[in-house]
Amino acid sequence: RFGYFGKDQPELVRLLLCNVSGCLTDGRLHMSVGGLEMVSIHNRDLAGIRMLKNEGMEVILISSSDNPIPVALADKLSQQTKCELRHFKEQRQVEVERLIVEKNLGWKEVAYLGNDVPDVDCLNLAGISAVPMDSPMVVLNAANYTCQSRAGHGALREFIEHILQLKKSAQCRSEVQSPM
Amino acid sequence: RFGYFGKDQPELVRLLLCNVSGCLTDGRLHMSVGGLEMVSIHNRDLAGIRMLKNEGMEVILISSSDNPIPVALADKLSQQTKCELRHFKEQRQVEVERLIVEKNLGWKEVAYLGNDVPDVDCLNLAGISAVPMDSPMVVLNAANYTCQSRAGHGALREFIEHILQLKKSAQCRSEVQSPM
Amino acid sequence: RFGYFGKDQPELVRLLLCNVSGCLTDGRLHMSVGGLEMVSIHNRDLAGIRMLKNEGMEVILISSSDNPIPVALADKLSQQTKCELRHFKEQRQVEVERLIVEKNLGWKEVAYLGNDVPDVDCLNLAGISAVPMDSPMVVLNAANYTCQSRAGHGALREFIEHILQLKKSAQCRSEVQSPM
Amino acid sequence: RFGYFGKDQPELVRLLLCNVSGCLTDGRLHMSVGGLEMVSIHNRDLAGIRMLKNEGMEVILISSSDNPIPVALADKLSQQTKCELRHFKEQRQVEVERLIVEKNLGWKEVAYLGNDVPDVDCLNLAGISAVPMDSPMVVLNAANYTCQSRAGHGALREFIEHILQLKKSAQCRSEVQSPM
Repeated sequence: RFGYFGKDQPELVRLLLCNVSGCLTDGRLHMSVGGLEMVSIHNRDLAGIRMLKNEGMEVILISSSDNPIPVALADKLSQQTKCELRHFKEQRQVEVERLIVEKNLGWKEVAYLGNDVPDVDCLNLAGISAVPMDSPMVVLNAANYTCQSRAGHGALREFIEHILQLKKSAQCRSEVQSPM
Repeated sequence: RFGYFGKDQPELVRLLLCNVSGCLTDGRLHMSVGGLEMVSIHNRDLAGIRMLKNEGMEVILISSSDNPIPVALADKLSQQTKCELRHFKEQRQVEVERLIVEKNLGWKEVAYLGNDVPDVDCLNLAGISAVPMDSPMVVLNAANYTCQSRAGHGALREFIEHILQLKKSAQCRSEVQSPM
Repeated sequence: RFGYFGKDQPELVRLLLCNVSGCLTDGRLHMSVGGLEMVSIHNRDLAGIRMLKNEGMEVILISSSDNPIPVALADKLSQQTKCELRHFKEQRQVEVERLIVEKNLGWKEVAYLGNDVPDVDCLNLAGISAVPMDSPMVVLNAANYTCQSRAGHGALREFIEHILQLKKSAQCRSEVQSPM
Repeated sequence: RFGYFGKDQPELVRLLLCNVSGCLTDGRLHMSVGGLEMVSIHNRDLAGIRMLKNEGMEVILISSSDNPIPVALADKLSQQTKCELRHFKEQRQVEVERLIVEKNLGWKEVAYLGNDVPDVDCLNLAGISAVPMDSPMVVLNAANYTCQSRAGHGALREFIEHILQLKKSAQCRSEVQSPM
């Protein structure tokens, strides 16, 4: 099959990994003296998650110890998005590899949306990877795709539409070529 | 009368339908651990709603089950804007058609401000339709008018000014032509 | 004195009037189900108010019944900025004229920062007037000066710097010409 | 050593001073009637602070009486960022000079991120200085480096990356030249 040994095989992607802070949220934390902590998420990104799930893919949210989002708030976002949440404590690549082995997947089956230095290795290894427009330069260079949307303002949705579009194109190519 | 069989008949518009999340609000939900949920609305959009009502038109806000805004918050926005609120559970077009029959109206008498995939059919059917600037591509293509303002930052106001301008032009044309 | 009968006499300005909602704030209201209502103000604008007061000018904040900011919140902003606050209920121009008579001033001594249709007459009458960049077209046309900053993000500060600059230039001109 | 008597000696920088309001935060204060006050900080800026500390540099946050951030909230931000916080009451330059003497440092060893008029002297004196993109003109001119990012949206992170890059280049130059 044409393209089988090429770099991008979007038809294989079965799992999307997405940072909570700076990918699902805009990276900001709103704080009060009394200890109230708030983050902001966008309806368009939540709609994107539902679109991907409807196509049979899984979405897992990543929270880490670098992350200023308190654990309880990350759990809240997990409930709101109906996505599994993983709290990573060790080096990102090690944790993600443990996760994809557990899910019986390989890197080619993973789509990754990251936004900072600890994500660089995973962005390079994943089958498809993206970063929100407002990411540091070093991270922009590691991803296949740079979203035109900012984090927390549709970047996740845009990446999901990109994945679905690639999968659709790959299916068309595959259908055209199979009878030959 | 000239233009009677044309596409746009803004002089007929009597009802504006507007999504709460992503049209009246900017689509974002601010969340805390303790369960506090906030949305943001813009004074300019509220002023627009008052302008349209002063011209004798009705504005109905649409909330749906796809929508992350909790029911109680949508009700709050209904009070704040003094607009009726409808919670749609089924397919959008079916629900809107039920509503306009109930109001003794047809699609030509409806202006529709939408922002995502479930709105596409209604955007195509409505007499006049618009989307905020920051909407996904597929939705941008379905609307007559793309607002230069973002959702929750004056897009609703801009659409209302557009409607009022079109109505005024149509009235002028009609007055010029009636004596002939 | 040269320019005495010209349009702009910035050296005369002694009072700045500024809308609370959409000029001091960004025009947005953040709302929760439980009734929490928040608005956002910018440090740069507060610093501007202090600059103007240090030059002996007065700043009065305007709140109106068109305005979604609750009275108690406007009072809070009055305390925060240490500026007098007026709640206007009638037509804007009438209320402002009453205020400037009370202060023994004329329109030429008033600088006005407005952002919507009810401000148009005052923008036309005031000695100097401005609007934040993100104002509707009809309002942009009524003001002498269009701020490059958005409301709640430095528009007030920018207008104040503009006034101080004009006053300084007028003083220089006046000093050069007086000996002649 | 080449460049020893030049203006920029980034290899000497050991302390970064940063305003809380308008540098670490976006300069906005979110307020409710009931007295709730919130500010927003960005994960990318917090990651930057960690990067600088990992390279052995110190970060001190500056709060001042001009500043609308309540003392308790500034303390909260100090805990969140794990940076010392100083409340300055007198003229900025005097306070900073007292601080750098206390730390046994000179101006050449200080990096300064400021955003308003009271920072101008310190921006001129510091070894390296920067301002967020959205700063008033007079302040932009006083700094060595103008961040492309806005305050509270990565300006601090960008300045930190700039410092680290300059230090790295200076080290390379120094290594090339020492054997000669």
